[in-house]
Amino acid sequence: MGIVMGPNQYGKAEVRIVSVNRDNPRHTIKDLNVSSSLRGDLDGAHLTGDNGNVLPTDTQKNTVYAFAKEAPIGEIEEFALRLGRHFVGTADGITGARILIDEYSWERIPVGGTGHDHSFARSTDEKRTTAVTIDGDQAHVVSGLKDLIVLKSTGSEFWGYPKDKYTTLSETNDRILATAVTARWRYLHTDVDFGKSFESIRATMLEAFATTHSLALQQSLYEMGKAAMEKHPEVAEVRLSLPNKHHFLVDLEYCGLENNNEVFFAADRPYGLIEGVVKRDDVDEAPQAWYSLPQF
Amino acid sequence: MGIVMGPNQYGKAEVRIVSVNRDNPRHTIKDLNVSSSLRGDLDGAHLTGDNGNVLPTDTQKNTVYAFAKEAPIGEIEEFALRLGRHFVGTADGITGARILIDEYSWERIPVGGTGHDHSFARSTDEKRTTAVTIDGDQAHVVSGLKDLIVLKSTGSEFWGYPKDKYTTLSETNDRILATAVTARWRYLHTDVDFGKSFESIRATMLEAFATTHSLALQQSLYEMGKAAMEKHPEVAEVRLSLPNKHHFLVDLEYCGLENNNEVFFAADRPYGLIEGVVKRDDVDEAPQAWYSLPQF
Amino acid sequence: MGIVMGPNQYGKAEVRIVSVNRDNPRHTIKDLNVSSSLRGDLDGAHLTGDNGNVLPTDTQKNTVYAFAKEAPIGEIEEFALRLGRHFVGTADGITGARILIDEYSWERIPVGGTGHDHSFARSTDEKRTTAVTIDGDQAHVVSGLKDLIVLKSTGSEFWGYPKDKYTTLSETNDRILATAVTARWRYLHTDVDFGKSFESIRATMLEAFATTHSLALQQSLYEMGKAAMEKHPEVAEVRLSLPNKHHFLVDLEYCGLENNNEVFFAADRPYGLIEGVVKRDDVDEAPQAWYSLPQF
Amino acid sequence: MGIVMGPNQYGKAEVRIVSVNRDNPRHTIKDLNVSSSLRGDLDGAHLTGDNGNVLPTDTQKNTVYAFAKEAPIGEIEEFALRLGRHFVGTADGITGARILIDEYSWERIPVGGTGHDHSFARSTDEKRTTAVTIDGDQAHVVSGLKDLIVLKSTGSEFWGYPKDKYTTLSETNDRILATAVTARWRYLHTDVDFGKSFESIRATMLEAFATTHSLALQQSLYEMGKAAMEKHPEVAEVRLSLPNKHHFLVDLEYCGLENNNEVFFAADRPYGLIEGVVKRDDVDEAPQAWYSLPQF
Repeated sequence: MGIVMGPNQYGKAEVRIVSVNRDNPRHTIKDLNVSSSLRGDLDGAHLTGDNGNVLPTDTQKNTVYAFAKEAPIGEIEEFALRLGRHFVGTADGITGARILIDEYSWERIPVGGTGHDHSFARSTDEKRTTAVTIDGDQAHVVSGLKDLIVLKSTGSEFWGYPKDKYTTLSETNDRILATAVTARWRYLHTDVDFGKSFESIRATMLEAFATTHSLALQQSLYEMGKAAMEKHPEVAEVRLSLPNKHHFLVDLEYCGLENNNEVFFAADRPYGLIEGVVKRDDVDEAPQAWYSLPQF
Repeated sequence: MGIVMGPNQYGKAEVRIVSVNRDNPRHTIKDLNVSSSLRGDLDGAHLTGDNGNVLPTDTQKNTVYAFAKEAPIGEIEEFALRLGRHFVGTADGITGARILIDEYSWERIPVGGTGHDHSFARSTDEKRTTAVTIDGDQAHVVSGLKDLIVLKSTGSEFWGYPKDKYTTLSETNDRILATAVTARWRYLHTDVDFGKSFESIRATMLEAFATTHSLALQQSLYEMGKAAMEKHPEVAEVRLSLPNKHHFLVDLEYCGLENNNEVFFAADRPYGLIEGVVKRDDVDEAPQAWYSLPQF
Repeated sequence: MGIVMGPNQYGKAEVRIVSVNRDNPRHTIKDLNVSSSLRGDLDGAHLTGDNGNVLPTDTQKNTVYAFAKEAPIGEIEEFALRLGRHFVGTADGITGARILIDEYSWERIPVGGTGHDHSFARSTDEKRTTAVTIDGDQAHVVSGLKDLIVLKSTGSEFWGYPKDKYTTLSETNDRILATAVTARWRYLHTDVDFGKSFESIRATMLEAFATTHSLALQQSLYEMGKAAMEKHPEVAEVRLSLPNKHHFLVDLEYCGLENNNEVFFAADRPYGLIEGVVKRDDVDEAPQAWYSLPQF
Repeated sequence: MGIVMGPNQYGKAEVRIVSVNRDNPRHTIKDLNVSSSLRGDLDGAHLTGDNGNVLPTDTQKNTVYAFAKEAPIGEIEEFALRLGRHFVGTADGITGARILIDEYSWERIPVGGTGHDHSFARSTDEKRTTAVTIDGDQAHVVSGLKDLIVLKSTGSEFWGYPKDKYTTLSETNDRILATAVTARWRYLHTDVDFGKSFESIRATMLEAFATTHSLALQQSLYEMGKAAMEKHPEVAEVRLSLPNKHHFLVDLEYCGLENNNEVFFAADRPYGLIEGVVKRDDVDEAPQAWYSLPQF
């Protein structure tokens, strides 16, 4: 019996980069948070502190900045693929890489009825994300979004559930349904118009959330994933994590008022948490694409 | 010599309330974070634990929910004024109140080219704020916004500053200027169309930020405050707190690349912090309106 | 080809419970953050909104509170095992459960040289954790800790790494090494004195961090895991996630001062991130124990 | 009528510095978060972008690091006084400075029964603080602490309060009382053993919290402030901000259990907020010492 190293990775997390395209006076900006991790034969570093295969995380950071200058960043998936493929082989034994990118969105500040050339305001707290895995010659792209907060003020029910001695919840056929969407979807290949695909998947999932008369947040989750995949044959699976951000109806009987689903207390904790995978039944799994990401 | 109680207040902080107007199928929602504090003769509670004058914070919370049902919330300033005036006198010795409200903004989810009737997405992390002070018969309204993140990719310089033995910074006539605006402005009276005034002040300050060719973030601060006040005679003073969110030009000489203000490192800490008051020189100060708020 | 539900789970997250043992005037308290997730046949909820198998998350919360009263909580692993085993079978088709618990630590407030009977102060931001998985008859226990911040002011080197055109980092044989430890270890079975085991594993890993002359944070990671496992045959594997919290030596040449590893800038982002598994080579893997936990 | 600049300040916030004393192999460390702001004649910067009086915030940062090398940091109050006095006069028109310092605490990692020479663990999330104001020749020192979380599992009551139509709270003579202490106290002069004074004030306030049988959190606040000031004639006033971190008794009647103050739900929001000043009645106010600090 012995104690050995199992799977491992190392890298530089949260390299914050803002890139300005100044090709003409009407600037555009890209605002990213980039993390890289390298994988491969790293036993030396762990067992004896031999860094012969360890491309420093500082160099990884420098590479991110240099790549942003060497060519236009493009879509975050493209930038992540370029970085990941570069890192494989930069040191002996480095056979894999994982690149995570979050993108922040900005819009032009309106001045005199039009957007300003070089002044911007952060448009939302929502982030577009990608997680690219390079494993030798293979590449996996898992894209997504997070911190997209949505709410339905009606059109949500919850009833028909099992009761036991610990049950106190009343059934309802009209409640607020609110969540903060984290979604990730795996592309079947890399020959994708990533920007266009992202916009369409996002819009489709939002529309499915809005139009689904929901009997359970699970049902909304499934409808969101299914709608995205029906429109997008390039997607193999969608994973969703949906906190149920409870809005409790305030009982106003204490002062003689009837509360017809009008006044709610927005609770912080605890919250429900609904997580699941919607997938095609005829495509291979790709555990490597998800390894060391939260599973849902 | 004796030890005595000085100024004090107590209340319920961060009552999270979502109110749905269901008058017709096209719902509207108000999403607020309400804090109340009461002031007055509270020596009993402090010196002997006599709660005879202490309207419980739990009751304050209940009152917020009930008021949201008893009449439409309206603008946050109006809701805060109603609450504050109510609390004065609810218990013996309660002579003042401070109501703080943050409002979160939502937009309709687009479905088939139009906004959905009852499905919404959080539109931004920015919050509209108010701080209303009731002091006997007097009312002060200080409104504002926070977490409005803005950036200019050019049109900002910094030079001409004093140098000493600790100076290493190079002068520049082209840098990124970025900040997260916290602004508060004091209204001269309460006879204001608060919604319209807010929208106009916000737009005016954004436009001033965008169009000011900035030699110092201090200059941008002043121009923002001045522009708002020139348009809005109902405003006595504007207080701005502007962190200078540094974006450092990455030196890419290490790999032979020239960086023409294209690639920046967005730093977290430390950050500059520019704070100041822009005011009219002919109106009275109102320290009560600001008491126990951060000064800037 | 069809679109189907893949793996999924749902539950109540972050049930904050404080339990007071009042058996005698010298109280003890347990302060926990409990999350439960149920797994099994939940296709009905997703595909048609049929909640027949969905034990409400509200009931899960109620069960946590009731269990804390029905019997002493004991060690968090024991409480999680009791809860998880209870939930399996509470509804048709529920065949598995995942219970996550974080424990906050408190110490008695010193009064007159001894700890007070019923007054406590939070002792640290570090949390003890467990993740218990019930899969039918099987139980897996993965315990750990998080937010344990440690620093070595010397005894850390970094050199011998590969250089490429993007490298600017200088080699060093004396640097600050600092990290925030997240550790999880899987027990081989449940017949463990969990409290004693936790204390010893924690102390052993801390001691290994302190006494390892580190040539790479990877080496410290391995030594921490190995030391814990050598002492604890009940542990199958240890997974560590160690952010490299950079402390950069400040170059004080600008004012003619030599900085002999005395004055450092503690950076926020980016940071290194070193993650890995230390394991026995003769025990079976247990992917179920880790499923839907972050992999490292 | 004109629009003019009112009060203002600018500086560098959150300079994170770790200083290692390596005089002998048993190292000691200081871990600080330092913010500086300068005040004076800054109209030029605001009105025309003339930076002639603006010592750059970057230089302020460099000065902090250099001062940490030029002489031992000492107590945070001493370091802040040195920095503040230095900044006044560094540029024309700079007549005042405000230095804020938070100090993080570390303890030695135990190895073989004793603390290690150069390996440390963060001991608590609590921070020791100071806010030093230099106004020409005058110096004010306001020291304190924050994020000190305390809890009494009994010895707290709440009753005798006024009721109105919005009241639903039941009176109680046994509840959990919990808060996160933010305290600031103003010293009458600077001839103080700041380290010793801090330790004693902190211990005294903790002891007062523990031993006060509390009829209101206001009463605990007063007793904490009074106890500190009775022991410390060098203190002019104490300001306390005490969120009432509610722990609600869980009603377990739903499953037939009686809950004798044993099982509590620890709520996040809303929370009570109790703020007040305890002061001597024979000392002058010093509004400058508090200006632009939150009032309580």
